[in-house]
Amino acid sequence: MLDLTQDVGALTARIVDIESVSGDERALADAVEEALTAQKHLKVERSGETVIARTFLGRPERVLIAGHLDTVPVADNLPSRVEGDLLYGCGTSDMKAGVAVALKLAATVPEPNRDVTYVFYDCEEVEAERNALTRLARDHAEWLHADFAVLMEPTDGVIEGGCQGTLRADVSVSGKRAHSARSWLGVNAIHGIEPVLARLNAYEARRPVVDGLEYHEGLNAVGVRGGVAGNVIPDACVVSVNYRFAPDLSLEQAEEHVREVFAGFEVAFTDGAPAARPGLTDPVAAAFAAAVGGTPRAKLGWTDVARFSTLGIPAVNYGPGDPNLAHQQGEYVSLTKIAESESAMLAWLKG
Amino acid sequence: MLDLTQDVGALTARIVDIESVSGDERALADAVEEALTAQKHLKVERSGETVIARTFLGRPERVLIAGHLDTVPVADNLPSRVEGDLLYGCGTSDMKAGVAVALKLAATVPEPNRDVTYVFYDCEEVEAERNALTRLARDHAEWLHADFAVLMEPTDGVIEGGCQGTLRADVSVSGKRAHSARSWLGVNAIHGIEPVLARLNAYEARRPVVDGLEYHEGLNAVGVRGGVAGNVIPDACVVSVNYRFAPDLSLEQAEEHVREVFAGFEVAFTDGAPAARPGLTDPVAAAFAAAVGGTPRAKLGWTDVARFSTLGIPAVNYGPGDPNLAHQQGEYVSLTKIAESESAMLAWLKG
Repeated sequence: MLDLTQDVGALTARIVDIESVSGDERALADAVEEALTAQKHLKVERSGETVIARTFLGRPERVLIAGHLDTVPVADNLPSRVEGDLLYGCGTSDMKAGVAVALKLAATVPEPNRDVTYVFYDCEEVEAERNALTRLARDHAEWLHADFAVLMEPTDGVIEGGCQGTLRADVSVSGKRAHSARSWLGVNAIHGIEPVLARLNAYEARRPVVDGLEYHEGLNAVGVRGGVAGNVIPDACVVSVNYRFAPDLSLEQAEEHVREVFAGFEVAFTDGAPAARPGLTDPVAAAFAAAVGGTPRAKLGWTDVARFSTLGIPAVNYGPGDPNLAHQQGEYVSLTKIAESESAMLAWLKG
Repeated sequence: MLDLTQDVGALTARIVDIESVSGDERALADAVEEALTAQKHLKVERSGETVIARTFLGRPERVLIAGHLDTVPVADNLPSRVEGDLLYGCGTSDMKAGVAVALKLAATVPEPNRDVTYVFYDCEEVEAERNALTRLARDHAEWLHADFAVLMEPTDGVIEGGCQGTLRADVSVSGKRAHSARSWLGVNAIHGIEPVLARLNAYEARRPVVDGLEYHEGLNAVGVRGGVAGNVIPDACVVSVNYRFAPDLSLEQAEEHVREVFAGFEVAFTDGAPAARPGLTDPVAAAFAAAVGGTPRAKLGWTDVARFSTLGIPAVNYGPGDPNLAHQQGEYVSLTKIAESESAMLAWLKG
C-alpha cells in the first residue's frame, strides 16, 4: 500500500512511477483510494477513476484541494530519476508533485482547522467533455461543495488567482464570384476583410485589475481562409478570432464586446469558456494567501479553476511545479519546492 | 470518308458526333487526316493526334487557321440534335463549328489568295504541358511558320484581338508564434496582411489601349491562408494574388509591377503566361479585319493566341460559337452564325 506519510518528494517519485496517461488512470486511482480509505478520519468516495476524500469535523468552513491524476503521454521519461534537487519524469511538474502534497496532507492532518475535501480526478489533459470535473458537477455536485478551492496545478509556488476566459468567433465577409479575367464583375471577399484586420490592429487590449490582480486581455486573429481557385474572385472569406478576457466580464459580456468590435460584420461564436474571478478579496481566500505568503498574480491562461468558479466556489491555482515545464519531455520538479508547498499548506490548515 | 464539301452546319454535326474528349481524339484526327489527304492541293502532316495541312502556292503571305479537335467531357449531350437554327451537343460551340469552317475552307478553296496552314490539334482543354501546340512549337516549329494566325475559338463572330496575360504570386508575411493567452509575446502574421489588402483595395486597374483595342487589367487576391491552432498567434500568412495584364506589358514587366505594388513584402511568383498583342495594326491583320468586318474587341481572358504571339505570329480569335456557352451541358451553336463565318473567311481568302 502507498505510504502517504513518507517524505513528500519520495511520495511524488512513487506516484510518478505509477503510469497514468489520460484514460488509463485506474492503477493510480486504485492505489490512492486504498491509501485514503485506510485513514479513519476521511470519508472516501469513488466515481470512475476519481477519488474524493472528506473530513467531517463540523468546521464552519470547508475548503477543497484538487489535483488531476492523469498525465500527457509518456515520452521515454519514466521511471522517474533524481539529479541533485530535481526529480525528473512524466507528470512530475504537471502535476503529481501537487497531488503528492495533497495526499500527504490528507493522511497527516487528521484535524485540520477547516473541513477539507480532497479531489483526485482523471482526464484533465484531454477534451473538456471527458474531464471528470464535468461529470462530477453533473452527477455528484454535493461532493464538490466548498467555500474555497485550491487547484494544485504547477505555479512555481505562487498563488495564481482566477483565470481569463476565452472565446472564439468567425468573422465572415461575403462577396460575389467572377472570373478573375473580368474581376470588376465580382466582389472580392478577401479584399473585404481589410477593415476586420484594421480593427484588430487598432485594438487596445485592456489590463484591468480584478480583486487586486492585474489581467491582460488579447483579441487576435488565429486563422483566416478564403479562395475558390486561382482564376476566381472569391465570394467568401472568414477570419477566426480568439478573445482572451479578464474575469470582470461574463462570457455573454465578452461575446457582446466582440460583436461591438466587429459591428457591421457577420460574427458567429464557435467556442467559449468563462473566466474565473480570483476572489482573493473574500476572507476565506485572503486567509489562504496570508498563510501561504508571496505575491499572488493573475492567471492568464484558462484552467479548471473556472469550473469551480462556475459552481460559485472561489478558486486559485497553487502548486510546486514549474508551469513552463508542463508537457515537456524533460519535465522535472524541484524537491525543495515540493517541501515548501507542503509547509505552506500545513501553515494554512494547522495555523 | 468525311465529306468536307457538304453544308458547313451538317459538317459541324458530323464531327460533333465523333466523340473527342481531350486525350481521346484519335478517331476524329484519323477522319480529318484521311479527308484532308484526299485533297491534292494540300500537303498533310501528322503528329500524335494533330493534323496539319498546307498549301504551297508561292504566295507572298502565309496565314494559319487553327482549331482544337478536343472537347471537355461529354455530359449526356451527344449525339448532336438540331432545334430550329440551333445545333446542340458537346463541342458544338467550343469549337467544332470553327473546326468545320476551317475543314470546309481547306477542301473548297484550292487556290486561296494567300498560302494557308490549317492546324487541327489535340489537348487544348487540359494542362498546358499536354497542349499539342506546346509540342509542335518545340518539335516542328517550321510547320507553324506564318505571317498571321486565326484561332477559330468561339467569339460570336467578332474578331477578338490578342489576349491579356496572367500571373500568380504569393505575398507572404511572417510573425512569431505565441500562446494566444499571452498574445503580446508573439507577432500576429494575419494582422500583418492588412497593408497587403489595403494596397489591393487602393489599386487602380489600368485600361490601356493597345493596337487600337481597349484592355482592362485586374489585380486581385484569389486566396488567403494563415493560422496554426485556435490558441496560437500565427507566425505566417500568405495572400495569393492574380494579376491579369494588358499586352503592352511583357511577363517580366508584369512581375516587376507586382513586386512594386507589394514592395516591402516577400513576393514569390507561382505561375505566369504572357499576354499577346492584337497586332491589328499590322497590314496582314488589318486585311483580315477589313474582309471579315465588324468591330474588333480586346480578348481579356488568356487563350492559345498567346502561344502564336510568343512565336512572333500576330494572332486573333474569331469563330462562330458563343463563348458564354463553352463547357456548358446545354452548349449549342447557331447554324446561321456558322454559315456567316464561312462566308467571311471565304471573302478573306478569295477576295
